[in-house]
Amino acid sequence: VPPIIVAVDALGGDQAPRAIVTGAVQAARREDISVALVGPVDQVRAELERHGSLRQLPITVVDAADVVAMDEPPLAALRRKPRASVKVAAELVSRHEAHAVFSAGHTGATFLAAHAAFGVLPGVERPGLAVTIPTRTGTAILIDAGANLESRAEHLVQFGIMGAAYARVGWRVASPKVGLLSIGEEAGKGNDLIREAHAGLSRAPVTFIGNLEARDLFSGRADVIVCDGFTGNIALKVGEGLVETIEHLLRQELNATAVARLGGWLSRRAFQRFRRRVDDAEYGGAPLLGVGGLTIVAHGRSSARAVENGIVMAARLARERVVERLAEALAG
Amino acid sequence: VPPIIVAVDALGGDQAPRAIVTGAVQAARREDISVALVGPVDQVRAELERHGSLRQLPITVVDAADVVAMDEPPLAALRRKPRASVKVAAELVSRHEAHAVFSAGHTGATFLAAHAAFGVLPGVERPGLAVTIPTRTGTAILIDAGANLESRAEHLVQFGIMGAAYARVGWRVASPKVGLLSIGEEAGKGNDLIREAHAGLSRAPVTFIGNLEARDLFSGRADVIVCDGFTGNIALKVGEGLVETIEHLLRQELNATAVARLGGWLSRRAFQRFRRRVDDAEYGGAPLLGVGGLTIVAHGRSSARAVENGIVMAARLARERVVERLAEALAG
Repeated sequence: VPPIIVAVDALGGDQAPRAIVTGAVQAARREDISVALVGPVDQVRAELERHGSLRQLPITVVDAADVVAMDEPPLAALRRKPRASVKVAAELVSRHEAHAVFSAGHTGATFLAAHAAFGVLPGVERPGLAVTIPTRTGTAILIDAGANLESRAEHLVQFGIMGAAYARVGWRVASPKVGLLSIGEEAGKGNDLIREAHAGLSRAPVTFIGNLEARDLFSGRADVIVCDGFTGNIALKVGEGLVETIEHLLRQELNATAVARLGGWLSRRAFQRFRRRVDDAEYGGAPLLGVGGLTIVAHGRSSARAVENGIVMAARLARERVVERLAEALAG
Repeated sequence: VPPIIVAVDALGGDQAPRAIVTGAVQAARREDISVALVGPVDQVRAELERHGSLRQLPITVVDAADVVAMDEPPLAALRRKPRASVKVAAELVSRHEAHAVFSAGHTGATFLAAHAAFGVLPGVERPGLAVTIPTRTGTAILIDAGANLESRAEHLVQFGIMGAAYARVGWRVASPKVGLLSIGEEAGKGNDLIREAHAGLSRAPVTFIGNLEARDLFSGRADVIVCDGFTGNIALKVGEGLVETIEHLLRQELNATAVARLGGWLSRRAFQRFRRRVDDAEYGGAPLLGVGGLTIVAHGRSSARAVENGIVMAARLARERVVERLAEALAG
């Protein structure tokens, strides 16, 4: 089996390039994954040297001097910077020199670079970002997690179709249940967008279970949760912020008495396992579904471990030929 | 000091009338609170009798036979049911026979009944539901939590002004910081609605700290968090669902080994205190800001304890003359 080559944007992310390079080295130590690190050659090489001898590892460095900063309007930035790392990384995939692109940088810039390099699959109007979230029973796919800021009902219907195909192909869910995120379970509940999308999903070739309240996001009731990108981004970030706040408040309570302190100390491994379970599912990376090349978007705050997980996910989805099979599913 | 009279919708809520009546009895046992329980007299009396001798308690029963069910379109239901409990309760306030109305029933029906009975304060276009959420440093106000499903930018600006006035009057925050919930902190981040509301809040007579990411909802960065009702409802319900899921997953981990079990047992009181801290702040009840009478909306799933807290909150806000002082703040 030839190795899967993942083109990694070495400049994208709050802790780039260090966390990106470390994560890439860790991923490349696994079987059957090659990494093309895309960024300023000197800077990337200097980071690589921190990891000692890499002679055996399948890592190449591809030069790209520029980066799209988090506060730049991405369209203008990409026009002004033809050597932006995320653009060069996407072009490696469109030239068939890599199988997937991975970036923890500006989501909008990754979206635009992938769109320009790969185009969209036949029948897709708007690509959607499909994040995997932990649930009581396993995981669920939330789409769109923020690739688009304004959506029409027909876009939500496509998110449902793409999300279901991805759940089947990428997560081996035989018959994924698709729910529409809204403020009440009844079909009439929600705003105009939701009511129209509800009607569309009822007619779409998916197992539609109707509206899903946000309190059921993590309950496992739905395998695919459809929403517009603004709402999806809010829902995910509320989740992140709350996990941190709960840990903070629990830590306060666990420090309040000696008995609680002892209890907290004895249960610290349980907390670590819990935290890992949340992190693994959430931060590995999210495929941008609907573009013609495999594109994995990771959280800007990704640690080296999250980058490693994201690259491993990219390789797995490339090996499963997710983009090709998604195109087949969309074709009918 | 004459007691504050709270008109309580005995039929509203998933556990009505039992949890409502129990919560009302508990609230009436506190100093200076009278309760008018509004519902079918026989049914309410039967529930009251479960609590033994109530001769000393300041509780009256006001007859109202009908209820707006959770799956009914509320406008049509209120027209068809002139004796709906929430409507009769609101009318007690407009006739000055009570100081505040409390309901854990259909939020839309409470909104419409309050609007019909009280009208809106001068200058208010859309009332907003102001929920108190726990943060690392105390509490924050989120407005709108779901009174409106579609909002324009000028409504969001008014939510900010009303929320800030409520934080000052109801929560004694001297100079409340107002944030606009969006998907990025920069002024340009968000959809069209957010960008327009950002411009409006920048010019409004409030301490506007700009966009607030959803991950900062519980961080304490803002005292007042402004959003449209659809987004606000999603954000709050994601929070609720996640708290439950985290407890579930942590329980699993705490049961995985004997040491973790012992740790979990020793720290159980810390968990209880944590849970109470979350519940107290979140489920007490939320005032509908902008209507001309004090209206407290509680969660449909409210327990007796949550109902008690909500009635106590209603009495406190009535005593502080929140509606009158909000009207003054809005007037300039």
